[in-house]
Amino acid sequence: MLGKTIGELTVGDAAEFSKTVSEFDIYTYAGVTGDFNPAHINEAYAQNTFFKTRIAHGMLSAGFISTVIGNQLPGTGTIYVKQELAFRAPVRIGDTITARVEVVELFAEKNRARLATTCHNQDGTLVLDGFALVSPPIPPKTA
Amino acid sequence: MLGKTIGELTVGDAAEFSKTVSEFDIYTYAGVTGDFNPAHINEAYAQNTFFKTRIAHGMLSAGFISTVIGNQLPGTGTIYVKQELAFRAPVRIGDTITARVEVVELFAEKNRARLATTCHNQDGTLVLDGFALVSPPIPPKTA
Amino acid sequence: MLGKTIGELTVGDAAEFSKTVSEFDIYTYAGVTGDFNPAHINEAYAQNTFFKTRIAHGMLSAGFISTVIGNQLPGTGTIYVKQELAFRAPVRIGDTITARVEVVELFAEKNRARLATTCHNQDGTLVLDGFALVSPPIPPKTA
Amino acid sequence: MLGKTIGELTVGDAAEFSKTVSEFDIYTYAGVTGDFNPAHINEAYAQNTFFKTRIAHGMLSAGFISTVIGNQLPGTGTIYVKQELAFRAPVRIGDTITARVEVVELFAEKNRARLATTCHNQDGTLVLDGFALVSPPIPPKTA
Repeated sequence: MLGKTIGELTVGDAAEFSKTVSEFDIYTYAGVTGDFNPAHINEAYAQNTFFKTRIAHGMLSAGFISTVIGNQLPGTGTIYVKQELAFRAPVRIGDTITARVEVVELFAEKNRARLATTCHNQDGTLVLDGFALVSPPIPPKTA
Repeated sequence: MLGKTIGELTVGDAAEFSKTVSEFDIYTYAGVTGDFNPAHINEAYAQNTFFKTRIAHGMLSAGFISTVIGNQLPGTGTIYVKQELAFRAPVRIGDTITARVEVVELFAEKNRARLATTCHNQDGTLVLDGFALVSPPIPPKTA
Repeated sequence: MLGKTIGELTVGDAAEFSKTVSEFDIYTYAGVTGDFNPAHINEAYAQNTFFKTRIAHGMLSAGFISTVIGNQLPGTGTIYVKQELAFRAPVRIGDTITARVEVVELFAEKNRARLATTCHNQDGTLVLDGFALVSPPIPPKTA
Repeated sequence: MLGKTIGELTVGDAAEFSKTVSEFDIYTYAGVTGDFNPAHINEAYAQNTFFKTRIAHGMLSAGFISTVIGNQLPGTGTIYVKQELAFRAPVRIGDTITARVEVVELFAEKNRARLATTCHNQDGTLVLDGFALVSPPIPPKTA
């Protein structure tokens, strides 16, 4: 059940997770984090903004990257060390976001992997990108 | 209702948001993002990890930083441009996390502010830090 | 407050529960069970499937049957022993599902009742059927 | 991204999903399905029952089986045809449930797989078992 160890990872390995972002997601995320910025939960306000409607929290899309890292690549047992994020475009209600993680560099002696991390919408527009640094799982030692 | 413009910000300005992280928060966050890594939602597994119990998703604490930026400093109308995150220590169920945002540099001609962003727990342990780059709100032009 | 005992049940007794299945229901159910199959939460994927849109988890409709059994027929105090389910048709967002439970056989000496269990949508299409075996409530003994 | 086709499945293939069932899970599940049987959401009532405390809905554990089928084995694109369930033991708040799915029979000409489905708690107690019949994904035809 453990994810991939540093020795099992190869530059170019990639994995994805997709979800259609609903009003439910934005409202539930607001309710957990306390981020009630009107851009996310006030349609009357949002119609007068540049984006013309409510948009999802950028950190919600960032959460989908963590989903890929923690569940698929490298997977269970991974320690999340660093994440850089650039928010490139808004996510609207009904957009389908695909988070993608790709191994770009391996530091075997330090047990670290550098990952390129992106989120695109259903039209192929880049909504978020950046890099993650993770520590892949280390199997328990056996005698 | 609009947040602070670049002209209203001063280096050293700071704001905070605190929340006790509950099992509800972690389970709800998992349910929205799809991150069911056993470190977060499997106590039997987690007791055999280094942390000895379930821990919160790192991106959940990161969300509290976004809460401060979008609601207090600079506040409503701010565009989130970049965020760097370093995950320093685990957050356990019952920990009270304080997210803090402080203005460290202003780029008036580009309408950008650089913010130092941290999360500490109730014991003063740093759990997350990094920097954000934001575009403070621009008031609508008047005749 | 106790439900019907075996002696109070008659073959042909029936009860129903109806709910319009919303995106909220499907997303919340995914969030609790961890079932993020794209057929349920990815509209871009789902448009290319046979069903042309996201569909509800079959087990969500099955939950409505449990609602009738545990709350109406036989009701409080019932022990759920077995359930057979055949998934007959998809449930889409906005469909109104009616779960129906009908007593079809009574085993008084074993305190067991066999129930016919169905879910139909607002057009009368059968979406789920099968049989349940339950142990109706036994009143506390009195001196 | 598609799950395993009938030709890629072998008798004995197995997959699992585990979650610690929290009060949050039971209450959220109740809120979606409408199953407010006091055995699940009334501690004062539940203390006077055979189980001495609130227990999870049996169909919640059944949902974890669907999670394995729809996401892992066979995975994306699988059609859920039938499920038989026997509820063997209660699930209490804090129990860690492991749902397991194992291929027991393949009907290649009908594109059907029969799966043994179980849920155990952290002590190895069987809480639910039965069999599922599914239709594994069929890849789109190419010229």
